[in-house]
Amino acid sequence: MKEHAVAAAAFPIDDSRTRLLAEELFDALRAKTSDGIGITRASYGDGESNALDIIESKARALGLDTKRDAGANLVVTLEGNEPDLPFLACGSHLDSVPQGGNFDGGAGVVAGLAILAGFKSDRSRFRRTIKLYGLRGEESARFGKAYVGSTALFGRLTPADLAVKDAASDRTLAECMREVGVDVDRVQRGEPLLDARSVAAWVELHIEQGPVLAARGLPIGIVTGIRGNVRHRNVECLGQAGHSGAVPRWLRRDAVFAAAELITHLDRHWRTLLERGRDVVVTSGIFGTDPQVHAIARIPGTVRFSFEVRSQNIETLEAFYDLFLSECRLIGEERGVAFKLDRRLDSAPATMDRDWIERLKKAARRLGLPDEEMPSGAGHDAAVFAHAGIPSAMIFVRNEHGSHNPKEAMDIGDFMAGVAVMRASLEEAAQ
Amino acid sequence: MKEHAVAAAAFPIDDSRTRLLAEELFDALRAKTSDGIGITRASYGDGESNALDIIESKARALGLDTKRDAGANLVVTLEGNEPDLPFLACGSHLDSVPQGGNFDGGAGVVAGLAILAGFKSDRSRFRRTIKLYGLRGEESARFGKAYVGSTALFGRLTPADLAVKDAASDRTLAECMREVGVDVDRVQRGEPLLDARSVAAWVELHIEQGPVLAARGLPIGIVTGIRGNVRHRNVECLGQAGHSGAVPRWLRRDAVFAAAELITHLDRHWRTLLERGRDVVVTSGIFGTDPQVHAIARIPGTVRFSFEVRSQNIETLEAFYDLFLSECRLIGEERGVAFKLDRRLDSAPATMDRDWIERLKKAARRLGLPDEEMPSGAGHDAAVFAHAGIPSAMIFVRNEHGSHNPKEAMDIGDFMAGVAVMRASLEEAAQ
Repeated sequence: MKEHAVAAAAFPIDDSRTRLLAEELFDALRAKTSDGIGITRASYGDGESNALDIIESKARALGLDTKRDAGANLVVTLEGNEPDLPFLACGSHLDSVPQGGNFDGGAGVVAGLAILAGFKSDRSRFRRTIKLYGLRGEESARFGKAYVGSTALFGRLTPADLAVKDAASDRTLAECMREVGVDVDRVQRGEPLLDARSVAAWVELHIEQGPVLAARGLPIGIVTGIRGNVRHRNVECLGQAGHSGAVPRWLRRDAVFAAAELITHLDRHWRTLLERGRDVVVTSGIFGTDPQVHAIARIPGTVRFSFEVRSQNIETLEAFYDLFLSECRLIGEERGVAFKLDRRLDSAPATMDRDWIERLKKAARRLGLPDEEMPSGAGHDAAVFAHAGIPSAMIFVRNEHGSHNPKEAMDIGDFMAGVAVMRASLEEAAQ
Repeated sequence: MKEHAVAAAAFPIDDSRTRLLAEELFDALRAKTSDGIGITRASYGDGESNALDIIESKARALGLDTKRDAGANLVVTLEGNEPDLPFLACGSHLDSVPQGGNFDGGAGVVAGLAILAGFKSDRSRFRRTIKLYGLRGEESARFGKAYVGSTALFGRLTPADLAVKDAASDRTLAECMREVGVDVDRVQRGEPLLDARSVAAWVELHIEQGPVLAARGLPIGIVTGIRGNVRHRNVECLGQAGHSGAVPRWLRRDAVFAAAELITHLDRHWRTLLERGRDVVVTSGIFGTDPQVHAIARIPGTVRFSFEVRSQNIETLEAFYDLFLSECRLIGEERGVAFKLDRRLDSAPATMDRDWIERLKKAARRLGLPDEEMPSGAGHDAAVFAHAGIPSAMIFVRNEHGSHNPKEAMDIGDFMAGVAVMRASLEEAAQ
């Protein structure tokens, strides 16, 4: 925390009005969507809807126009003098993982509202319209696919995506979307809910979800690209149950020992690729024996687990995925188990717009802030906007303890630095 | 199945009366305690109690005396001419693991009742009383400690044992025991419910829970000793949760990768010990991330798993346990995780009585049956009786597909071979 204080003092952004508004919104979001341990704003669920309501009611109180679009996202508009020009879009998502943190997603929406409120109160008039999006369904962890909300916006959700069931509620994504007001019929037809040609740029402020800015002592970073990923929500390792005392090792088909060996081999391949300079991270966030039948004295016949590999490079993703398949086959043969894979889910890596990167860096330098470039290890809606052909950009704000957990810690001074860079860049682009 | 038919024909035991009674009892047990997939007779729960009721009501219908002892076990008595002599005890347990099989435990009780019914109907009179026990709480998987019922019988349950909670019902072992009629006050005082000096021998028929008899083409085996074990019901691997895309490998404290490496290292040590001729099996039957918080996009901060090592040799148990502790320490240091162990649970290996082994072998030979000796890979109540100083013996009956699963398959012809050896031996010893 001391390091933060020093860093914030080194880049003083003096804007107490914006700062107070931001703090008020963060407090309101935390109070309304706390689950006792962290923050839970389930994608297309109550917590997410509550967050949208909080932002919308504040926007209205500040005199800004608001609406919900066909994707049930919140849109706050500052009309420009030439409303037919492609508009500038900013914002982030308002959903969270279970027991997550208050700033992941929320910071970008609060930043956008603080900036629009400032423009409104200053009676600033620009040529271009600026719109703030409070997006739904970015984490969408319960549906096993990220960026569901922005993907729907560009008409790219597949029938298979829409049919995925949330394990907890046993309801499909389509059902959950319809409940909060999404025009699911259009989504099902693959119809874009937002015309990409009408959007001049997407600018997203987000907390860094890794430890890089903190480790390097920087308040903000300018993002160059976003890691893509390949995932399986559910891999089943199928062996054979049996009495834990009575089956000798050579006759066992133990699903835990097989799946553990798979993870250990993947870990070795990961290390090898890192040593050769490749960008890759590997995770099995969900892993377990079957609670309906598992017992201490029973050789586990089944293990279910999730698989995820991320990289900025599509060749690295494919290479690692091939290693994964190959290990499943080899370990399966050696241990008499079968690895059964559900549908492969892909998110392609994305590149941020070079002109916008330069605009953000220039604004940072003018404000006396560092202008370091960095990749994004995590995925973001900005990747979907970029894939839709919209020039996209991201500002990362330093954050301790990572994200997707209740301990995330963003210093408000660092946040204000990010807001200042974003405001200056939007102002320039909107002229 | 063909192999069975041949084997059964090779050792014909012609006793259609006993066979019909056994088949009737197995059918009744299966019908009453089926869970739709397998058999569930929860220790100190309804399924177990139903099984006791079925055996008791049949015993009464056959004119045998029955009672429930202070441990709430079923006791069927065939009074001898000299009732003050130490009595012969036979039987097995009537509980099962969840979704288990019909014969694990049940076969030994049915065998005992079939034998006593035969003696009763033949008006056989012996010097010694013979008692059949339908024991409770042998599997006791939900309380993480095996042989709870027989351990209680000899006053050896500890306050810690009694305080263990069944995760599903959140009730303690003591509460569950009291509900079915156990004199828990005596158990809590550590008072034996059965005087070991009053018991001349314990004889238990049980299906083999491993594949050895099937692999060797033998209908029955005579057990020499029973593997002991060291267990932890719940080991916690504590790392740190984080965003799966944004934390580089060198900053991760991933509980799944750490626990998987532990299992993989234990597997290697296991192979090494087997290559050196040691007797050992290792199992982690329960293993998983926290369903409350796990997600595909979240580095798992916690994994919980059970640990079990079994061996006939106490030095091997201790050596393997030391390797386990050492690996927890090393992997913990390397990966920045901590392994937190709950209470260590021990079951000592047990040796069967040599005189009884010879008596059973002699009976087998007289009946034209093979008299092969073999160790028991699984634990049994017979181990507890042996530890209480009671000469104990076991007959294994061939069984396909192992036990602790619904597919266990015992041929009734093999069962009849085991019954014949047991009856002949009890008859000889009771004279």
